[in-house]
Amino acid sequence: MTTTQTTTQTTNERTALDLLTTMTLEQKVAQLIGYWIDRGEEVVAPMAGEMATSSAYEDVTRHGVGHLTRVYGTRPVDPVERARWLWAEQRRLRERSGHGIPALVHEECLTGLAAWRAATFPTPLAWGASFDPEIVERMGALIGESMRSLGVHQGLAPVLDVIRDPRWGRVDECIGEDPYLVGTVGTAYVRGLQSAGVHATLKHFVGYSASRAGRNHAPVSIGPRELADVFLPPFEMAVRDGGAHSVMNSYSDLDGVPAAASRALFTDLLREQWGFDGVVVSDYFAVAFLQLMHGVATSPAEAAALALTAGIDVELPTGDAYLALVDAVREGSLEEAVVDRAVLRVLTQKAELGLLTETFEGHGPDVVDLDPPGHRALARTLAEESVVLLANDGVLPLGSAERAPARVAVVGPNADRAAALMGCYSFVNHVLAHHPDVELGLALPTLAEALRAQLPDSEVVTALGCEVEGEDRSGFAEAAEVVASADVAVVVLGDQAGLFGRGTVGEGNDVESLELPGQQRALVAELRHTGTPLVVVLLTGRPYALAWALDGEDRPNAVLQSFFPGEEGGAAIARLLTGAASPSGRLPVSLPRAAGAQPYGYLHPVLGGPSEVTSVDPTPVRPFGFGLTYTTFARTDLTTPPTCPTDGTIAVEVTVTNTGAREGTDVVQLYARDVAASVVRPVAQLLAYQRVTLAPGASARLAFEVPTARLALTDPAWRRAVEPGTVEVWVGGSCAEREAEGRVELVGPLAPVGPASGRIARCSVSPA
Amino acid sequence: MTTTQTTTQTTNERTALDLLTTMTLEQKVAQLIGYWIDRGEEVVAPMAGEMATSSAYEDVTRHGVGHLTRVYGTRPVDPVERARWLWAEQRRLRERSGHGIPALVHEECLTGLAAWRAATFPTPLAWGASFDPEIVERMGALIGESMRSLGVHQGLAPVLDVIRDPRWGRVDECIGEDPYLVGTVGTAYVRGLQSAGVHATLKHFVGYSASRAGRNHAPVSIGPRELADVFLPPFEMAVRDGGAHSVMNSYSDLDGVPAAASRALFTDLLREQWGFDGVVVSDYFAVAFLQLMHGVATSPAEAAALALTAGIDVELPTGDAYLALVDAVREGSLEEAVVDRAVLRVLTQKAELGLLTETFEGHGPDVVDLDPPGHRALARTLAEESVVLLANDGVLPLGSAERAPARVAVVGPNADRAAALMGCYSFVNHVLAHHPDVELGLALPTLAEALRAQLPDSEVVTALGCEVEGEDRSGFAEAAEVVASADVAVVVLGDQAGLFGRGTVGEGNDVESLELPGQQRALVAELRHTGTPLVVVLLTGRPYALAWALDGEDRPNAVLQSFFPGEEGGAAIARLLTGAASPSGRLPVSLPRAAGAQPYGYLHPVLGGPSEVTSVDPTPVRPFGFGLTYTTFARTDLTTPPTCPTDGTIAVEVTVTNTGAREGTDVVQLYARDVAASVVRPVAQLLAYQRVTLAPGASARLAFEVPTARLALTDPAWRRAVEPGTVEVWVGGSCAEREAEGRVELVGPLAPVGPASGRIARCSVSPA
Repeated sequence: MTTTQTTTQTTNERTALDLLTTMTLEQKVAQLIGYWIDRGEEVVAPMAGEMATSSAYEDVTRHGVGHLTRVYGTRPVDPVERARWLWAEQRRLRERSGHGIPALVHEECLTGLAAWRAATFPTPLAWGASFDPEIVERMGALIGESMRSLGVHQGLAPVLDVIRDPRWGRVDECIGEDPYLVGTVGTAYVRGLQSAGVHATLKHFVGYSASRAGRNHAPVSIGPRELADVFLPPFEMAVRDGGAHSVMNSYSDLDGVPAAASRALFTDLLREQWGFDGVVVSDYFAVAFLQLMHGVATSPAEAAALALTAGIDVELPTGDAYLALVDAVREGSLEEAVVDRAVLRVLTQKAELGLLTETFEGHGPDVVDLDPPGHRALARTLAEESVVLLANDGVLPLGSAERAPARVAVVGPNADRAAALMGCYSFVNHVLAHHPDVELGLALPTLAEALRAQLPDSEVVTALGCEVEGEDRSGFAEAAEVVASADVAVVVLGDQAGLFGRGTVGEGNDVESLELPGQQRALVAELRHTGTPLVVVLLTGRPYALAWALDGEDRPNAVLQSFFPGEEGGAAIARLLTGAASPSGRLPVSLPRAAGAQPYGYLHPVLGGPSEVTSVDPTPVRPFGFGLTYTTFARTDLTTPPTCPTDGTIAVEVTVTNTGAREGTDVVQLYARDVAASVVRPVAQLLAYQRVTLAPGASARLAFEVPTARLALTDPAWRRAVEPGTVEVWVGGSCAEREAEGRVELVGPLAPVGPASGRIARCSVSPA
Repeated sequence: MTTTQTTTQTTNERTALDLLTTMTLEQKVAQLIGYWIDRGEEVVAPMAGEMATSSAYEDVTRHGVGHLTRVYGTRPVDPVERARWLWAEQRRLRERSGHGIPALVHEECLTGLAAWRAATFPTPLAWGASFDPEIVERMGALIGESMRSLGVHQGLAPVLDVIRDPRWGRVDECIGEDPYLVGTVGTAYVRGLQSAGVHATLKHFVGYSASRAGRNHAPVSIGPRELADVFLPPFEMAVRDGGAHSVMNSYSDLDGVPAAASRALFTDLLREQWGFDGVVVSDYFAVAFLQLMHGVATSPAEAAALALTAGIDVELPTGDAYLALVDAVREGSLEEAVVDRAVLRVLTQKAELGLLTETFEGHGPDVVDLDPPGHRALARTLAEESVVLLANDGVLPLGSAERAPARVAVVGPNADRAAALMGCYSFVNHVLAHHPDVELGLALPTLAEALRAQLPDSEVVTALGCEVEGEDRSGFAEAAEVVASADVAVVVLGDQAGLFGRGTVGEGNDVESLELPGQQRALVAELRHTGTPLVVVLLTGRPYALAWALDGEDRPNAVLQSFFPGEEGGAAIARLLTGAASPSGRLPVSLPRAAGAQPYGYLHPVLGGPSEVTSVDPTPVRPFGFGLTYTTFARTDLTTPPTCPTDGTIAVEVTVTNTGAREGTDVVQLYARDVAASVVRPVAQLLAYQRVTLAPGASARLAFEVPTARLALTDPAWRRAVEPGTVEVWVGGSCAEREAEGRVELVGPLAPVGPASGRIARCSVSPA
């Protein structure tokens, strides 16, 4: 204990720079790597109390270590026991480092801390669908509190990749296809997480989602303008407005240069232009991939030097390549200054986290509740806000008639299955493939269970119908029988999230077809024959081609789209179905017409849409921003000034009125089109948005203040700037609907967009 | 006549520059536009001798005109009569111009002069499949001779767009998916055409084929490196090695900048870097599209100034926008020097063509044969060389048994239909949609007719089965009956080429699915039940998803892929089917697995192919370079020097042996892989190729000399250069087969690729 205290005192007085000057090369390099101790064969049984450590681990960490990788999240472990091991291990590492430097502990936390019995919130596509950054920020704070309580310092979230192709399996980790929606919601997550003292990690810098044909890790063919105008803004917002402390690289190459080898991205742009002063970590194994996949290095040492020089400070999950940095420096092939630069960043981050003065006395928390009622409540509210009502002939809400239906069938592969509520990066689905017999120890009411609770006076009957995947239709008959016996049927379809071939969506689970997997469409057709009203609920991780369900002759009576809604998703959807809550989610991504028309995004220029020069109409089945409610809204009286300076703020006001008979929430979406510019511009671009809840008959006046920087483009001379000219603005039920419109003339000289430019539109709401 | 002669004498003495200094602004601008007189309502009946001229035409051309657009090709006109009109019109235009400057007459000529009764050669994909630049050059010369005889000076071909996505309808106008194949074959066409005194036009500069999701005119998302390494090389070869005199813009935008507005492309790169000194013409209506489609101009005058400044010298087909240049200069919004620059180029081109001294005495040719026997013979040879045998269980050749089959069924929508042999840019299909009752007056034997002629002792019976498109299966039964009665059935399937919705492939006919159109796959399944051996012949303009036909359980006995083979295609295929000729074509484009896996190209890096990180395997059903013969070949004894300077020539030798029992032709393909480089490189890259015909048992030794510039890449510092390092080389039956391999170490410093660098590999063949 004496030694520890001495070290602590010393650390308290030193700046990171002072520390650096006293470190050996080995000690420095140790700070640039992670170690994944609880992976594969290398760890003792997780419940055996303090983890044993392997000789390999002992060897690698003999000079300390930068990160401990996924201490809690790889398998089901009791968090209190694991924390006990961690506290002791941190004391040991402080000694080994020679300078009292513990490890930074990072975890996955995309839909909540990815640990056993931790709350699982809705998946990021659901955050996007909520159009509600405030609740996402609160969620981030709750996640951060859980992490911090366990001694976790950094979370590998959020994912700020702008969706470009729904064939990609990782779409369920993304927020949406609009950079501003991704930027605002993603930044909210960052703010929330970091408010709890846990550093956020922006993923994946940059362009990953634009991989060829939506295939994971495939080459990215985009030019610098599209990169600047579409893919970079969310990251810039999260760095500059959100103060994100860490960034992770994309696996892919961009126009031939792997992101992990790009000095232009990680140093010139991120640090020098944007002023990022945190730490860049590699995505798992990405440094080794520079040699093994991309072929831009001939050895791990070359790969390490390339990545470190580019600006990848820390290699995760382990130091497979970066350990070679010691020899590289000794042999003279790499300047020690490049190592020092990265070490300084790591030590500064540890200082900011309080790690250089933390002594890890004791054994961590005695009691941990990672899923307290507050988490549950927020998870349910966010889930409710995120469900998108795609179609409804009046069958919904189920409770809107004088009484609830006597008999409700809840059928389909996702009707009574908890894992169907969770995204790929949930703990449940992230580990379920490897630990199928996990006792989850977490309340995960399925939709069938939740409906039963929600409709105590109704009889709720269930049937599987078919699995999510596969050719088996043997359950159709039973499902049809159950449905035929009911007053209404809820048919719960969709995905099973998972990793690399286990599941229908999630990391590695890319697709060539956007039809619902397996026999699910056929199941609906079969159930249609019963004549029982059908409500299709989709629990998916990507938008599917649903023209048959929305516009087909034999379409169901209503369709609800839920992007994996998390642990309270069953309850949330049950409340929406029965009218205890009202749908208010909006599509954060276009509903595609066909896989063969991909990629498609709403943010396209004239020739990216339907035109007379092509026989293919890529118009989506339902556009970005679309979503029905149990009431109706009118958007009227849009006003805008005739002119606005190119470096000013556009004041747009609009009135929204609840024209229906029920309370409801509208997501008021303000779009714009730059009619003519020096470069090709999209036909619609989201400028701002605001959720508004209104009683029947009530109106609100929304006053948007939109910084003109929202209309910035990268001009032919590569300036990011706002140009003078005519801008059309409108509000409607989606990007495709101009319900109330106006125009404003931007006047004045070209206005360069600088670091201090506003990136966020404001909105004030008053009764109209 | 006196006036004309005086003008002629004066013209003969002046350089283009002298001419320019004497011209009014109106006269100058007149040289920068085309006029399409024979379009729509504006022309008298085409057979009425000399065309009347409309008042609009008179008005526009009162100061002369730069181009006459498609004088022969818009509808069926007698070439002698139309030439008579043209000669007189040229005399009139010489007078109107004030300076004795006639019009330059341009025509489409992609698969032969696009005029009534002119020879129709195979489509460019078939040129690519032949891997035979020499015959393509001879074809170009024949096409040029026909054009020149009619007073046509410029042809709007070849298309040098590198195929990236078979969903695109214009794939049939392209040569292949490999830049070197496109460059060598395309340059051969340029040399041939220009050897006859007709200027070639390189289309479409640049990137058009990379449009989003293969949709025509859609945005192009590629970066500058991919542009430099994949899309530009064919153009550079055709400009520098082929001396092409004209270039046409791509319609699309590249990373937000429409090609037609890109000074970087048309001035900085094309002229200043490559030394192009010809004339750039706009694709039809592309200048107006800058305003109407791309929104980078607010008026025709702005669009005109933008395009002209970028380097688009002539607006085609008419001067809708460029006529406004007069006012733009007068109002001071455009420097007259920009106009002068373009006019000087046009006048220089006209001088080179002899137009400034030509007086157009007389009335043109008295007799014209646009389809003489020499054209026919070459069309048939090229067609024969271009057909790819994809599968054969021994059923082919049909005449290989002691005697021909007694009864041959020839069925399917393309069995007995001449238009099925023609590409979209053939005169036949280019005008057929608008003039369905054209008397073609050209011998176009269908495959059924040709087989009847080829098998005089066999009974050839036909049936339609189904149309190319549509849902109608009512002809299945008759087709099955016909097939059941035969000893063997040739099932002729595929496309109908056409324009903008008329047809299944061709300009504007993009697709979401790569399944064969209509009921054709179902027809094969139906015919399979007869038990009669089936030979499927595909006459298509794009590669389709054919896994079912090649690897399926119920696959036909043989499959021949022909990319629209032209007027002698029926005869050529009949000769191949019966063994009178042997298949030697190779796939110039990968046979895709599914539309949903597009884009895919063989020239991909590791992560562009199958990998453990994605569930989608984009490996094509048959790879680039694949093709069977009626014999077999072995490639052995590949030798290469252990080292080669980075600025040197790699000598690779390999032996090819005909190991079968019939004479045959191998296309020896030399591939390489740069194992590690500063940027991501493809897993296979075509370095060189050579057709070799060998008797049974015979061998040849091929000595390739490959300039290292073939391995150039665009490095992270944007230098196009050859790097030191290990290069694997191999020869095999396709890009995917390493039958004989070696490796060479490139040694020395980085070798920049300059203007004088060799771009063509040489090969000498000697008996082994």
